[in-house]
Amino acid sequence: MLDGKPPTERIPILKLGEFLLVTIQVEMHDRLVMTLQDELTQQIVRHRARGVLIDISALEIVDSFIGRALANIASMAHILDAESVVVGMRPAVAITLVELGLNLDGVRTALNAEKGMALIRRRLGPGGGLDAHGS
Amino acid sequence: MLDGKPPTERIPILKLGEFLLVTIQVEMHDRLVMTLQDELTQQIVRHRARGVLIDISALEIVDSFIGRALANIASMAHILDAESVVVGMRPAVAITLVELGLNLDGVRTALNAEKGMALIRRRLGPGGGLDAHGS
Repeated sequence: MLDGKPPTERIPILKLGEFLLVTIQVEMHDRLVMTLQDELTQQIVRHRARGVLIDISALEIVDSFIGRALANIASMAHILDAESVVVGMRPAVAITLVELGLNLDGVRTALNAEKGMALIRRRLGPGGGLDAHGS
Repeated sequence: MLDGKPPTERIPILKLGEFLLVTIQVEMHDRLVMTLQDELTQQIVRHRARGVLIDISALEIVDSFIGRALANIASMAHILDAESVVVGMRPAVAITLVELGLNLDGVRTALNAEKGMALIRRRLGPGGGLDAHGS
């Protein structure tokens, strides 16, 4: 066991071909969001990523703070010429978002990571996306 | 903000083609490990997954408890005819593991998710693995 210590203050970013995958599982607070934005933008540039998938299937709540963070990440990715998609939103989260009056403007969503990848690939057109058989 | 409440008691499992991707970020405890083993084995069967990638890049500590959990998951996946690879281990974690005398027997490792996918694909041979351009 980890002695009650939170194991991380970083959200890992996985590179999968031309995609970056971010899985958000931990409580988001200001510093963590800033670290994530910082690392993600750096990695988009370093890896010339064309797509960013943000998985929020572990989140039971998306409030205005997280909604704004997701929208900011989408804007930053867009400026860096990468498409971003939020995937895996729970039905209850969608209900709460609407009840809170949050529309997640500027944030594209897909049911799951695979559909998110397909969405980005369609937008990039032929030749874009992950060449999974390249290895 | 999430009012200090842990946002999840589930580790999300993402399906990417014939791979399942598990990103471990939160503190592992008995119940969480059992839930993960339960869901992962179910998903391997449901999606006929051939490979399981377990990303531990967010973990600063891998102790004997987590080491055993990883070894158990690898064994379960193997019995269900899926290859598993632990990816993203931090250098400090490798040092601690050796100092603790833990060899992670039966657990295959790769530097990152991409190399892990490539490793599984090589082991599966031609035709195995993620058909990323299938969509």
